[in-house]
Amino acid sequence: MSVLVVGTTALDSIKTPKTENPLLLGGSASHAAVAASFFAPTRLVGVVGGDFPAKYLKLYQKHGICLNGLERVATGRTFHWSGEYEVNMNNRRTLDTVLGVIETWQPVLPAGYETTPFVLLANISPQVQHRVLDQVSKSRFVIADTMDLWLNIALPEVLKLLKRVDCLVLNDSEARQLVKEDNVINALPKIHKLGPKYVIIKKGEHGSVLSGPNGLFVAPAYPLKKVIDPTGAGDSFVGGLIGYLAAQKTGTIETNLRRAIVHGSVVASFCCEGFGLNVTTRTVRASIDARVRELEKIARF
Amino acid sequence: MSVLVVGTTALDSIKTPKTENPLLLGGSASHAAVAASFFAPTRLVGVVGGDFPAKYLKLYQKHGICLNGLERVATGRTFHWSGEYEVNMNNRRTLDTVLGVIETWQPVLPAGYETTPFVLLANISPQVQHRVLDQVSKSRFVIADTMDLWLNIALPEVLKLLKRVDCLVLNDSEARQLVKEDNVINALPKIHKLGPKYVIIKKGEHGSVLSGPNGLFVAPAYPLKKVIDPTGAGDSFVGGLIGYLAAQKTGTIETNLRRAIVHGSVVASFCCEGFGLNVTTRTVRASIDARVRELEKIARF
Repeated sequence: MSVLVVGTTALDSIKTPKTENPLLLGGSASHAAVAASFFAPTRLVGVVGGDFPAKYLKLYQKHGICLNGLERVATGRTFHWSGEYEVNMNNRRTLDTVLGVIETWQPVLPAGYETTPFVLLANISPQVQHRVLDQVSKSRFVIADTMDLWLNIALPEVLKLLKRVDCLVLNDSEARQLVKEDNVINALPKIHKLGPKYVIIKKGEHGSVLSGPNGLFVAPAYPLKKVIDPTGAGDSFVGGLIGYLAAQKTGTIETNLRRAIVHGSVVASFCCEGFGLNVTTRTVRASIDARVRELEKIARF
Repeated sequence: MSVLVVGTTALDSIKTPKTENPLLLGGSASHAAVAASFFAPTRLVGVVGGDFPAKYLKLYQKHGICLNGLERVATGRTFHWSGEYEVNMNNRRTLDTVLGVIETWQPVLPAGYETTPFVLLANISPQVQHRVLDQVSKSRFVIADTMDLWLNIALPEVLKLLKRVDCLVLNDSEARQLVKEDNVINALPKIHKLGPKYVIIKKGEHGSVLSGPNGLFVAPAYPLKKVIDPTGAGDSFVGGLIGYLAAQKTGTIETNLRRAIVHGSVVASFCCEGFGLNVTTRTVRASIDARVRELEKIARF
């Protein structure tokens, strides 16, 4: 079954202690759609400006991503994020953000997209996430990602969104912020009360925690010796996760979610090994499956 | 088989954002010996002063811990540590330390202790750890724990110790400090080069990572909704771990280590649920086994 991904399509300029990398393909929807495409037919809903390089369109197409929902505004600029990572690669700070065409974007789904069974509302304003949800019907499973920015400036819209989605994905500090609770495990039931049946908390190199009707799943991250650039790892995680879910012909969401999380985690590990999408886009399904098998061995007891 | 535990036996006064708890039973050897005693006969090697409460001796005895190696210096004061936890319970700072009898202590093993097959050098000065190792022979497996203090003030002695032990246990920031490497996974081979065949990195609520001849094991922590006092959790972890190893009648160290780590992690979870040893000493083996089974379900994929 196919996956619809809505989110930002961006040009990222990323500084690390050692390098500068201007105008990489980035954005939550780019990372998530490429990740999902390893498993299932993927539809990208986003917007770019006239400055968006043709080579990046080709990159999406190389992954078989349907671009009917990618709006191009020839007179506008593509959303541009620049940021910097500190030495330990865990702390990121934004240097500059140019919203460009994303600022006034009102997504309109192409005909046929409204029945996509798996919908990922990747990180973007909750207003845009709502607008896409308004246009889809009969979706089998809706996952929403978010970030601290929206909890700070658009909390009412985020809270409304939580009543409309099956699964919320957020990182540990966002989980604490959302329900004002220091202990992440204790935050989970409080987040469920806000709406989502499933909650997944991302902990970066420490893996993730799923909470759902059948209790908790504590998932390991694939252990990496070298992290080049973690930008987009969370988007790759959730993209891989929903792509894997959509591809399963047997089992229920509940029974498939654990392995979906492990597959998402492995796609995220490739993402971290290069700048932007450099390594992810060179990855093939067989390499993902090999790391999943490795992770099975590493986590068994 | 039996376990010898050497380390500090202390009185701890612990402040948290909500409470003050004076003169709790504490110290690395107290936590580790009680943890080990759930699985195997345990011998405690330590020193206390005349102020050490009789009730704490009874507590050791209730756990069947052999106290022939617990020296009592009637004219001296017991080692006293006082510390404070910050709101998120992850950051601890020392308010005061009175070394007391531990300052000049030169441990002498009682007759018969020198052939104890499993030796845990719990956190204490590397000089004391060396002195105990000098007196044991034919030990099947030696684990050393340490802390940042010794890396700062006694690094040469720590480095010498690493050549004499089978397994080093340390937390993630200590691992980074020891080999000057930001990435914990990348630090592992560098730590092996310093001597130990097995290295276990403790990551608190994020679990632990074992590295050995058969590769990595990424272990989950038991997810706790409430952490009352994490003091001694690392000592409980390594104590439970070596106790479980010593109790196994089949398998090799290599094959038993993964489940040993999981059992240690579960004992540490009980430790965190109360001040000092309050909850650990009320725990029984059946409760530990129940949490291990729960963790098996939580981590399976």
